[in-house]
Amino acid sequence: MSRDRGPAPPAGEDRLIAWLRRRLPGGLIGDDAAVLPRQAWAVTTDAQIAGVHLPADLDPAWAARRLLAVNLSDLAAMGAVPAYAFLALAAPADYDHRRFLDALHRAAARHGIELAGGDLARQPHLTAVLTLLGRRSRGGRWLRRGGARPGDGLWLGGTVGEAALGLELLGRGARLAGRTIHLPPGLRLSDRLARAARRAVRRQLAPSPQLALGRWLAGETRRGGAIDLSDGLARDLYRLCRESDAGAVVRSERLPLARDAVELAARLDREPYEMALFGGEDYVLLFSLPADVVPPAAFGCRRIGEIQGGRRVELIEDGARRRLPDRGWDHLDGEQNG
Amino acid sequence: MSRDRGPAPPAGEDRLIAWLRRRLPGGLIGDDAAVLPRQAWAVTTDAQIAGVHLPADLDPAWAARRLLAVNLSDLAAMGAVPAYAFLALAAPADYDHRRFLDALHRAAARHGIELAGGDLARQPHLTAVLTLLGRRSRGGRWLRRGGARPGDGLWLGGTVGEAALGLELLGRGARLAGRTIHLPPGLRLSDRLARAARRAVRRQLAPSPQLALGRWLAGETRRGGAIDLSDGLARDLYRLCRESDAGAVVRSERLPLARDAVELAARLDREPYEMALFGGEDYVLLFSLPADVVPPAAFGCRRIGEIQGGRRVELIEDGARRRLPDRGWDHLDGEQNG
Repeated sequence: MSRDRGPAPPAGEDRLIAWLRRRLPGGLIGDDAAVLPRQAWAVTTDAQIAGVHLPADLDPAWAARRLLAVNLSDLAAMGAVPAYAFLALAAPADYDHRRFLDALHRAAARHGIELAGGDLARQPHLTAVLTLLGRRSRGGRWLRRGGARPGDGLWLGGTVGEAALGLELLGRGARLAGRTIHLPPGLRLSDRLARAARRAVRRQLAPSPQLALGRWLAGETRRGGAIDLSDGLARDLYRLCRESDAGAVVRSERLPLARDAVELAARLDREPYEMALFGGEDYVLLFSLPADVVPPAAFGCRRIGEIQGGRRVELIEDGARRRLPDRGWDHLDGEQNG
Repeated sequence: MSRDRGPAPPAGEDRLIAWLRRRLPGGLIGDDAAVLPRQAWAVTTDAQIAGVHLPADLDPAWAARRLLAVNLSDLAAMGAVPAYAFLALAAPADYDHRRFLDALHRAAARHGIELAGGDLARQPHLTAVLTLLGRRSRGGRWLRRGGARPGDGLWLGGTVGEAALGLELLGRGARLAGRTIHLPPGLRLSDRLARAARRAVRRQLAPSPQLALGRWLAGETRRGGAIDLSDGLARDLYRLCRESDAGAVVRSERLPLARDAVELAARLDREPYEMALFGGEDYVLLFSLPADVVPPAAFGCRRIGEIQGGRRVELIEDGARRRLPDRGWDHLDGEQNG
């Protein structure tokens, strides 16, 4: 093996992945999950790490369900039907493995997933990795990041920025006790805003992957790209556009925010549209559809803009059009960057 | 979900897995890899953690190759042909990701494996998880832990105890610098024993999965059980016997030890047969074959005993027959136990 390591290593997750893709002939990397040749399986793998993705002391049952949810979100973005799960669990000696495994098994069973294998190891904090295999839905297509075309409508499957508000609250001391979310002591909120704050923390700790929407897109539409929002609307929109060799325009006033999110953000001295654009972990689908296709109202989707030619990704705000920064959560930097 | 957690959680990896299997209807857990229905794929997942499986400061290229090797060993034990790899890599911000990924890609390519997906995250030390998918070899069978029958010969694919000697040397300060292994300062060995010591460290850091032997067993034999030795001969033999509902007898004098291992172990005040029976991470195959079947000499296999009826696993040593302790490496205890 050559010892020549070439120029300095790239920084940042996207640059590292781009570097790796140039070396890999098969071209399987680049979607939320890899579709194996002969189209039988979509495979995805994602980690949850205590202190990084999860509060360090999070109830093992909640940790297990979040691990499953973030992986399911990748399969939702492919339109895949989940089938098998493989777990690698590294945790402290006194970790409640049984509570974790029990919750994972139950949550997986609710989705028709069989926990089919795994590996256990001891380390000072929790690192849990799940690999999920999903089937193509019968008669459906695989959704891909590269499927967006100029003229498509650009859609969101749900509200954005709420998970980032939840993360902000956890950072200020919000805690889970049993099934109850305790807000940071000292934070005085009206009952209405306290409910919104608890919803935000729950959204952060217990995301809901949009599997039904993914199945509908895969089964009932013929064309369009899709990605799930893990690292923020802006960053993931850039990924969708890069894979589709297209640009996009987002209309700020169309962004769907959670109920009372504007007011709650103001109370936390945060800018709600900043969180909507650059906050991660909302785990809703961002997708494009031909201009004349509209998802069923029951999914609660919102058209937020259009795919356009060229590679520019833009934001229209108060009538002004400007470049949307390619900024968001970077898993290597461990913080928002741009 | 029920909050009733029942009796105290089981301790130890095997007990936890037994508990989990009782809850899972599909019965996929229990082999080195899970064979998906319709027999198309064997899937395995294994972690490598700095400070647990790997020296904390191990060269990222060596860490990547070891990660691949231990996973390949699971596929070797199934007789599978490796095809796709999925990586979850959690590492410090200043980790040389590029060196790790480059080495993983090169080593995978040598085995015809495509690196098809992954997930990157930041954490204070390296935890790397690989999921491998392997195909059934053309015209071959899957090897299974449950395939051993009374009367079968019991075979080892290579020497045992050498990786444990390597671990002992690493614990005493042996270090890798570039491709050179430096033995612990202060340990005085003859040139011959120093070479044996370096081989032992290399065996620990860079195991060689027995893929060719696995392919031969899957393709050229009709019956017999197999497992790869990750947690020690005794512990993994118990697993083989449990899955096969059988017992076994091992003849101590037949155990294949590495060259100069007896002398090297003596210099380290360790008992070589202890290390051969209870030391982990040798990554050779332990398998059974009908009494009249002998593997080709080129594989260097050694017949170490027989499968027998009942569930007793015994050791014959100096003419005396005694129960072999079910002892070895436990990934939850993080140390030898029994």
